[in-house]
Amino acid sequence: MSAPIRISLDAMGGDHAPRMVVEGAGIALKRFPDTRFLIFGDEQMLRPLMAEFPAITRASEIRHTPDAVAGDAKPTVALRTGRNSSMRLAINAVHGGEADGVVSAGNTGALMAMSKFVLKTLATIDRPAIGAFFPTLRGESVMLDLGANIVCDANNLVQFAVMGEAFARTVLGVHLPTLGILNVGSEELKGHEEVRAAAAFLRAGPLTEQFHGFVEGNDITAGTTDVIITDGFTGNVALKTAEGTARLYSEFLRGAFRSSWAAKLGYFLARHAVGKVRERTDPRRYNGAMFLGLNGIVVKSHGGTDGLGFGNAICVAIDMVANRINDRIRDDLARVAITPGPEAVLG
Amino acid sequence: MSAPIRISLDAMGGDHAPRMVVEGAGIALKRFPDTRFLIFGDEQMLRPLMAEFPAITRASEIRHTPDAVAGDAKPTVALRTGRNSSMRLAINAVHGGEADGVVSAGNTGALMAMSKFVLKTLATIDRPAIGAFFPTLRGESVMLDLGANIVCDANNLVQFAVMGEAFARTVLGVHLPTLGILNVGSEELKGHEEVRAAAAFLRAGPLTEQFHGFVEGNDITAGTTDVIITDGFTGNVALKTAEGTARLYSEFLRGAFRSSWAAKLGYFLARHAVGKVRERTDPRRYNGAMFLGLNGIVVKSHGGTDGLGFGNAICVAIDMVANRINDRIRDDLARVAITPGPEAVLG
Repeated sequence: MSAPIRISLDAMGGDHAPRMVVEGAGIALKRFPDTRFLIFGDEQMLRPLMAEFPAITRASEIRHTPDAVAGDAKPTVALRTGRNSSMRLAINAVHGGEADGVVSAGNTGALMAMSKFVLKTLATIDRPAIGAFFPTLRGESVMLDLGANIVCDANNLVQFAVMGEAFARTVLGVHLPTLGILNVGSEELKGHEEVRAAAAFLRAGPLTEQFHGFVEGNDITAGTTDVIITDGFTGNVALKTAEGTARLYSEFLRGAFRSSWAAKLGYFLARHAVGKVRERTDPRRYNGAMFLGLNGIVVKSHGGTDGLGFGNAICVAIDMVANRINDRIRDDLARVAITPGPEAVLG
Repeated sequence: MSAPIRISLDAMGGDHAPRMVVEGAGIALKRFPDTRFLIFGDEQMLRPLMAEFPAITRASEIRHTPDAVAGDAKPTVALRTGRNSSMRLAINAVHGGEADGVVSAGNTGALMAMSKFVLKTLATIDRPAIGAFFPTLRGESVMLDLGANIVCDANNLVQFAVMGEAFARTVLGVHLPTLGILNVGSEELKGHEEVRAAAAFLRAGPLTEQFHGFVEGNDITAGTTDVIITDGFTGNVALKTAEGTARLYSEFLRGAFRSSWAAKLGYFLARHAVGKVRERTDPRRYNGAMFLGLNGIVVKSHGGTDGLGFGNAICVAIDMVANRINDRIRDDLARVAITPGPEAVLG
């Protein structure tokens, strides 16, 4: 029997905190009953909430702090002034070995800055990336970076590829995950220097069998590859564009089902089927962005999510811990590092 | 009475050419009966097709050429070897004053290279951009660049803003179009140097009243601004991601409607309403990307489109000619050029 997985929670980050944090812990606990929580936040606010969920109380320990990182705080300011914030203390718990991973729905920039400062990056990773998985026509894919690095060089992209591959193989359970670099066309000569250099390296290196080449925006949801590699600017825009398009479609459909009596009756009959589509594309289901490349598991929940979404983010963290994702990334980096860097390949 | 609008057509570009070109001309002719067409392509292939549509025959003149630009030709090669291609001759017709605009569903890179070479850019435009409009929760918006310029500096982005503003005001008919620069967050400090410098310039310049600031990927379909300004790499990825997401949603829904007898019956009752959503989000309806910033009207149709899609692309060209879009862009550039460039603003 293995030891229970211990997750530290920033109870004060997010629009509906701390309620949705406690509710989320309850949802995660149902799926993974062995989990233990360290909950950082305002004890006076947390106690009455916890009282509603006896199972969580039994599985958790509250660590009181009155401080919280503001949603609009600059990362540098949060880092300097937030030493006793619920976010910082929850990260410290991972560094100190009290927790196996941390989940927060707070300020993304602050969470990344604090995580880097406290946990440090893995030995051969220059910059951590934000990754997330999402639905495709063929199942699920993982994309990174989604916003941690606005400008990336070829080396960063190659490191993202290695981390994404390890994630897809372990957490998504894909045997030999395929990799694609996001670009404006699939031909080798397309795109800017950074993507071409990264592609040349992956084509020549130990991941060559799994490297599909360039993919385009429509390949993300088509599921053309299991892993989509991109810089944080493009990835962030693509992710939010996909969210916006899903909402547009959903709103158009909602209007259509109200447009006539026949449509209303049709909706009534098809409501379970339509509900399944909503469920399948529900952003809460895919909530939980992984900070990959750190010496520790950090998961960022969407700030506006509810208990269901936060619960999913916790489950992502538990999955990453259970699959020992960082050990896999370390192994893979050692394997890939045998070959020369992108610059050498390009001469 | 004004003179008829004359459009030259590259009849040999696109997966379903030349049939869909002739069908598209017929569709456009129904909406704009005064239009005249100059159709460039293989006369032997075109004659029997035209015979099916007497109205097109009356409104058109065929210019025979056996040459066509290959779909996978490099732009530089197409430019050098395609002097007698249907694409090149159709562009020449605009330069020579025989046509007011040109539409092609051929190789995008070749079309842009030839258009730049033959027509040249407008006096104060450094680089032309590709723009397109698309559905939003609030109506329609225009986004540029969608792939002509992989790397853009702040000046390019400001010029895109001016061109997009002129387009939204004239062709979309928006009184004072609002402008947003695509970024990873709405705060002034977000993003890379180019978007921040362009934003600083627009905030300080004559378009300040219309400049909304930064927008994110989800704002594109939300319709937060009438114009979305971005570099060609990000714009291309965003456009194709939106297309892919719409397809994912549509496929999930198709599956759901087949999942039970109740759902099938529900679909039958709601089919007209669902059909309207399909129509409203049909990519063919938004087919026709504008090459903005050239001394002439050039519209690129999607290569895989059919007659309906190609017809819409022709209508986009007709709209641009009728609204004298290039005169508007010239006026606006003169107005904006009074103020210093982005570099000066940033010191």
